[in-house]
Amino acid sequence: MICLPELRKDPITGRWVAIATDRAKRPGDFIRQPVPPASTRICPFDYGNEHKTPPEILAFRNSGGRDQPGWRVRVVPSKFPILRIEGDLNRQGEGMYDMMNGVGANEIIIETPDHAATLGDLPEKQIEEVLWAYKDRVCDLKRDQRLRYILLFRNYGEAAGAALEHPHSQLIALPVVPKRIQEEIDGAKQYYDFKERCIFCDIIREEHRAGSRLVTETERFTVIVPYAARFPFETWILPKRHLSHFEDEDAPVLANLARMIRGAVRKMEKVLERPAYNLIVHSGPVQERPLPYYHWHVEIVPRLTRITGFEWGSGFYVNPTPPEESARFLREVALS
Amino acid sequence: MICLPELRKDPITGRWVAIATDRAKRPGDFIRQPVPPASTRICPFDYGNEHKTPPEILAFRNSGGRDQPGWRVRVVPSKFPILRIEGDLNRQGEGMYDMMNGVGANEIIIETPDHAATLGDLPEKQIEEVLWAYKDRVCDLKRDQRLRYILLFRNYGEAAGAALEHPHSQLIALPVVPKRIQEEIDGAKQYYDFKERCIFCDIIREEHRAGSRLVTETERFTVIVPYAARFPFETWILPKRHLSHFEDEDAPVLANLARMIRGAVRKMEKVLERPAYNLIVHSGPVQERPLPYYHWHVEIVPRLTRITGFEWGSGFYVNPTPPEESARFLREVALS
Repeated sequence: MICLPELRKDPITGRWVAIATDRAKRPGDFIRQPVPPASTRICPFDYGNEHKTPPEILAFRNSGGRDQPGWRVRVVPSKFPILRIEGDLNRQGEGMYDMMNGVGANEIIIETPDHAATLGDLPEKQIEEVLWAYKDRVCDLKRDQRLRYILLFRNYGEAAGAALEHPHSQLIALPVVPKRIQEEIDGAKQYYDFKERCIFCDIIREEHRAGSRLVTETERFTVIVPYAARFPFETWILPKRHLSHFEDEDAPVLANLARMIRGAVRKMEKVLERPAYNLIVHSGPVQERPLPYYHWHVEIVPRLTRITGFEWGSGFYVNPTPPEESARFLREVALS
Repeated sequence: MICLPELRKDPITGRWVAIATDRAKRPGDFIRQPVPPASTRICPFDYGNEHKTPPEILAFRNSGGRDQPGWRVRVVPSKFPILRIEGDLNRQGEGMYDMMNGVGANEIIIETPDHAATLGDLPEKQIEEVLWAYKDRVCDLKRDQRLRYILLFRNYGEAAGAALEHPHSQLIALPVVPKRIQEEIDGAKQYYDFKERCIFCDIIREEHRAGSRLVTETERFTVIVPYAARFPFETWILPKRHLSHFEDEDAPVLANLARMIRGAVRKMEKVLERPAYNLIVHSGPVQERPLPYYHWHVEIVPRLTRITGFEWGSGFYVNPTPPEESARFLREVALS
């Protein structure tokens, strides 16, 4: 009997994904390239090297003054920013094309003074402070009306695009809404216009009903492998209470989110042997009021397979591991 | 004086790209990982190993019978197909989600018996035969009304997703139009609805006028680095005569296209020291009649920078080399 692969449609964006059902890949089948332990090279994010970064924008401290050791979490502008906060947007045409100045911000959230820590090693409290730094920076930057979207993300390991080992996240504030995000928002809005319900709220309900793609849950969060996951072990962390903007969350939710992120990363590290991954906060455009149709969440994608020209050029992904299998492995792994 | 980066909008898809103008990267600045010369391992695509692939679908031969040596170009089904031609689409719901069977085709176009050749090494005539194989296979497959899109692409080098060294392209026929392609088509249609002109035809005119992003041209083709290129040295090969479907092109165009592809790859190899790259044919959905608003073309993207979580998750790309610089290097390099 030939087992046909399945094509599944992502209900939010309408993107089709091929799910291999035949010869499905299990965790052990991926070429494992664990992220190597951190080296002991001199790092600009270590205690005592604060002068090697631009002056800090924010720090949570035990001791010390500005740009001195003693901080727990520290936020600095990127030394090599993609965008700059100075200047006017100056939208203009150029022949048939359109351009504007790259006004925006690019900041680094240094998550701990411990150079060699991984996110899974950090105490929950420490991750919670990182989330507070995210929230504080977004709330500060969104007052600048030119900035329309703020992206928060974390690349871990070289395969995920991390250039520095020291645990850190990045913030990029843009004068435009990035295309993939806009698609997600548009898709969610279309669903809302049709059903008068938030699609993410519906997904949470559906995943509870189905159960097979559920990884874990608490009173405040549901963690799933999505139905049309593009990648093996792709994981979404969804808040149960509807809210469109991450920065509007309160302390109990941030505390619980820290626990969920830490748990999800630790599960991934255990099942897949410390893989490179990207963690991205999906949130509403900062200048738009609370939206009934969008629902902030966190997506974590381990980088196990190479994105080929086919996938990247077409937006049609092939996932060699059924989401139900990924979810089962993540659900069943015991965290010591 | 602070030099602001530029944000440029791709006129077709509306995607914004940040172009670094400060500290722009020149060819020598990229970490060079030339694709290593081919090894001499036993390969299923070499002469004498024809029995190691599924039976051939098409071959252009000097001698020999079916599945025997003597071919110049040979097309075989993939041994590990993503999709299968058998079965019914069987569209159905699954809870709130949508799925269908993975009906489609996945074929390998073996471009030469010479295991160690690169595309730039092959004679023009040989590349022309590869293009005829593309055309023949699309014309055959499109008779199957279930197949809506046929993607033709070539991954070169491991960094571009190539799993086998032997020169080959791939064909994937799908029962859906992939998302990125649909976006391009929708964007082109929107422009057409507004202007009553093909946007690609306008781009060709605009690039001739501007000149700064022009790499080369012939009577039949224009080769450019696009205004909002996502990647350094991204190159588009556009036919001057408007036609929506690659497979409708005639012999003189295919002959000239072979020359353009060979030239573009050789220029890239010379400027960038044999980089990994993806080559993708963008063409109209096969079941749709000639479209006034879409214009087939070829895109070649060398894989010089790692796509980070930020770029991949947001669809917002940062290009460290201004397209005008990329074009100048490609334009000025002499091909021996």
